[in-house]
Amino acid sequence: MGEFELIAAIKGMADGLPANGFEGIGDDCAVLEIGNGEALVFTSDALCEGVHFLREAIPPRALGDKALAVNLSDVASMGVAPVAVLLSLSLPDDLHEGWVEELMAGFTTLAKQHEVALIGGDTTRSQSGVVLNITAIGRGAASHLKRRRDARVGDVVLVSDRLGASAAGLKEVLQGNYHAPLAAIHHHPVAEIEAGCWLGARKEVHAMMDLSDGLASDLKHILKASAVGAEVELTAIPVAEGATLREALTGGEDYKLLLTADAAHCTRLMANFESRFQRPLYPVGHITASKELHWLEKGVETVQEISGFCHF
Amino acid sequence: MGEFELIAAIKGMADGLPANGFEGIGDDCAVLEIGNGEALVFTSDALCEGVHFLREAIPPRALGDKALAVNLSDVASMGVAPVAVLLSLSLPDDLHEGWVEELMAGFTTLAKQHEVALIGGDTTRSQSGVVLNITAIGRGAASHLKRRRDARVGDVVLVSDRLGASAAGLKEVLQGNYHAPLAAIHHHPVAEIEAGCWLGARKEVHAMMDLSDGLASDLKHILKASAVGAEVELTAIPVAEGATLREALTGGEDYKLLLTADAAHCTRLMANFESRFQRPLYPVGHITASKELHWLEKGVETVQEISGFCHF
Repeated sequence: MGEFELIAAIKGMADGLPANGFEGIGDDCAVLEIGNGEALVFTSDALCEGVHFLREAIPPRALGDKALAVNLSDVASMGVAPVAVLLSLSLPDDLHEGWVEELMAGFTTLAKQHEVALIGGDTTRSQSGVVLNITAIGRGAASHLKRRRDARVGDVVLVSDRLGASAAGLKEVLQGNYHAPLAAIHHHPVAEIEAGCWLGARKEVHAMMDLSDGLASDLKHILKASAVGAEVELTAIPVAEGATLREALTGGEDYKLLLTADAAHCTRLMANFESRFQRPLYPVGHITASKELHWLEKGVETVQEISGFCHF
Repeated sequence: MGEFELIAAIKGMADGLPANGFEGIGDDCAVLEIGNGEALVFTSDALCEGVHFLREAIPPRALGDKALAVNLSDVASMGVAPVAVLLSLSLPDDLHEGWVEELMAGFTTLAKQHEVALIGGDTTRSQSGVVLNITAIGRGAASHLKRRRDARVGDVVLVSDRLGASAAGLKEVLQGNYHAPLAAIHHHPVAEIEAGCWLGARKEVHAMMDLSDGLASDLKHILKASAVGAEVELTAIPVAEGATLREALTGGEDYKLLLTADAAHCTRLMANFESRFQRPLYPVGHITASKELHWLEKGVETVQEISGFCHF
């Protein structure tokens, strides 16, 4: 079973359980409305040594930062602010002196920067590699929540930054170039916390999620959840310096935002974003009624099938 | 660094972060009051192959059940009902056909029994053993919450069931007797979900926690948090069939409740509990002002130092 099949199987089992007021599996976070117009959101991510990182390649301080960043990214991509995390650490005996302290320094520096509380977790021994599991909790106005299912026909599809740098960095890491500039981007993703919260407050933004598996794969989640299609213009994809178009489309772990916005107000949204963040939003296509994803090159449909990154 | 030192170090770092309205590390769960007299509680636990279980010893169905049970136990020991969980599965490639389905069957059967929602999580590949991480969320009246810090001088110390069976079962497992009756108890802990919620609603109950590391170790957490001491009568400890007194005192993973209750109303509490659950609460000692834990044998102080189980 691949990751998505397994998730589908687990989702099937979850559907047989009560909801207890939660909107469960299907978005970047689960949602619980708590009254007074407020909602909490919840997400969990595991990082396993040898699968998500190589211990010899990533400094523990960067690992602590990244483990937190990817979870805060999931929260902010719902349009609300992260407020608290639980951290489970499974640690082998052969960690070098000071390794855990460095990991925690990276973790707490980022937590402090985004004013996130560390409210619990677990520490256990591991007989094999390091495993980190973080559960992040966000809180905000229920009306600000952005879900995958809310893309509308005619919406502009946008991304919040240049893409592909993390995948290009992973290539460097796998070649042993642990200190290459792109490797540093792979090890230190800058999640869109402020941008996610800011976009959450904008009514023109309809659907939103973070790009963890690559645009080609992640956009399909929005299309499926919203029962719509899209046309994406390949020449409009913002490719990060040092990355290829393919890495921008199918590379994982960029942790930038993918969103759809009302076409009638998109110009104003883009202008406001640029004046707030001193960088642009990038329109890359639009939502269609077709329920299919089409890739265009200078307006002409290409036949290529483009697939995303699989963490599993 | 041992487990408790590491937790202390992490707690120190957490103290430097904002609280954002959460009561964080220090109890079985973190607490967030959400208005209208209601509170949510949060807890995370990791189970690692080779540390918390042996894959060849525990059937996957039992593992799914146990992983959930230990988390629901932490929620119920706060006096409120579990309502939702997030499940992260890190899975190696060498699992036998149907292993994950069996694991999930055990998990969802228990979730259904306690009406708990499965709202999210993560599935990843593991390069080594199986790691499960569960975050459980509870919800209930804020006035029902039972914390470690609320034991009062004069309180009776009680446990909710006979102790030591899990430790005796672990001994069988480590000797390869995977099918011994006590091994089944070790692999299938029955967490005190209903009892925890029922005791949460009782004002006579002051402090409460679940017994995951053994009475000798866990009681010290209540004493420290409440700045009190205790005298415990060894002959009053309810020892499970097949277990020794030492296993009852220092064995981990019983997942029964440890509580302190107002001495003036304790007889009524015990009678009501027995008529509700058809089994007794066991008084084992009382809280003192001394800030020390003393072990008595027929009223006479013993000199032995009794230490708990360490998961790390």
